[in-house]
Amino acid sequence: MLDDIPSLNQLLKILQQIPYLASKNVYKVADHFLHMDPAKIQQFCSVLMQANEAVVPCENCFCLKEQDRVCLFCVSKKRDHSLICIVETWQEVFAIEKTNGYLGVYHVLGGVICPLDGIGPEDLTIQQLLMRIDNGIKEVILATNQTPEGEATAAYIAVQLRKKQVEVSCLARGLPVGSLLGTMDRLTVYKALSERRRF
Amino acid sequence: MLDDIPSLNQLLKILQQIPYLASKNVYKVADHFLHMDPAKIQQFCSVLMQANEAVVPCENCFCLKEQDRVCLFCVSKKRDHSLICIVETWQEVFAIEKTNGYLGVYHVLGGVICPLDGIGPEDLTIQQLLMRIDNGIKEVILATNQTPEGEATAAYIAVQLRKKQVEVSCLARGLPVGSLLGTMDRLTVYKALSERRRF
Repeated sequence: MLDDIPSLNQLLKILQQIPYLASKNVYKVADHFLHMDPAKIQQFCSVLMQANEAVVPCENCFCLKEQDRVCLFCVSKKRDHSLICIVETWQEVFAIEKTNGYLGVYHVLGGVICPLDGIGPEDLTIQQLLMRIDNGIKEVILATNQTPEGEATAAYIAVQLRKKQVEVSCLARGLPVGSLLGTMDRLTVYKALSERRRF
Repeated sequence: MLDDIPSLNQLLKILQQIPYLASKNVYKVADHFLHMDPAKIQQFCSVLMQANEAVVPCENCFCLKEQDRVCLFCVSKKRDHSLICIVETWQEVFAIEKTNGYLGVYHVLGGVICPLDGIGPEDLTIQQLLMRIDNGIKEVILATNQTPEGEATAAYIAVQLRKKQVEVSCLARGLPVGSLLGTMDRLTVYKALSERRRF
């Protein structure tokens, strides 16, 4: 029956391409757009196109920045430019910034090493990172995700950093704040035990 | 930090308005649009605007149709125009059409009676339904959802239909195909028992 409503058919097809939108919800999202005010649709589209054009990665730290502005991390005088936190994508930068507890700078890798997907170290910004390290960096925090690929990428970078005069650290593993010991998985409990600290 | 990247800020805000997109996924969807080819973004936007303009409800059954075409249900000669299935939205029409097992026509209510949301019978297409019934309808299938509002709406329509010479039915309740008796909720098992049929 969709062949008889080609505009709807096309709408459903492009919505299906949006990642993280559950296929069972595609009809409901289509309904949302069908009932949207035409002026709102126009605004939605212009915001999409503006962001696609104007948001670019910084040439130094590879965080996102506005095309015609400087990177707010790289030029900030309030930040400690000798402390660098290495993350996979800009989304983790936001997660760390939300804590209001980090005043160093960042380096966005742009992904993780994943031979199965054909992504090697040369596809990430590791070379640029090593060049930055030479410019007075004292400590590197490895903050890749705890996936096999994330941990392998951190290990690879740690090996590269051995030759440099720089301290290498990683995020603490343990019980999340507010968690109940009895409900946590055994690996987390094991980490919390083996990496226990003085009270 | 988002104030320094206004284009990204605006993108995140409009994506947050899309229903059924989990807020934890908004950053990932934003990343998808940031990395999209500009030509693809253009195409995405034109499809959205085209659908918003060209997809309209049929004036008779209120299913969706292309503005410049006839409704494929209302004009179909293969369909039984004396059998009408009443659903809440066009999305349920699609669910039923997928079965390839229904050859009657539809009537889309456009929602359910919900006094808490200020939606009364006059806000739905019930009046138009009653007018259609007078034109040779033999059977009405009430296929609203099994929510309190859906069942109340079905009950309301059933009362309205009492005065008409028309058979009123509803969808069968029971065990879903392939389900395990031991894992089903007790209300479904009760329905399956009390509405059991001859083997």
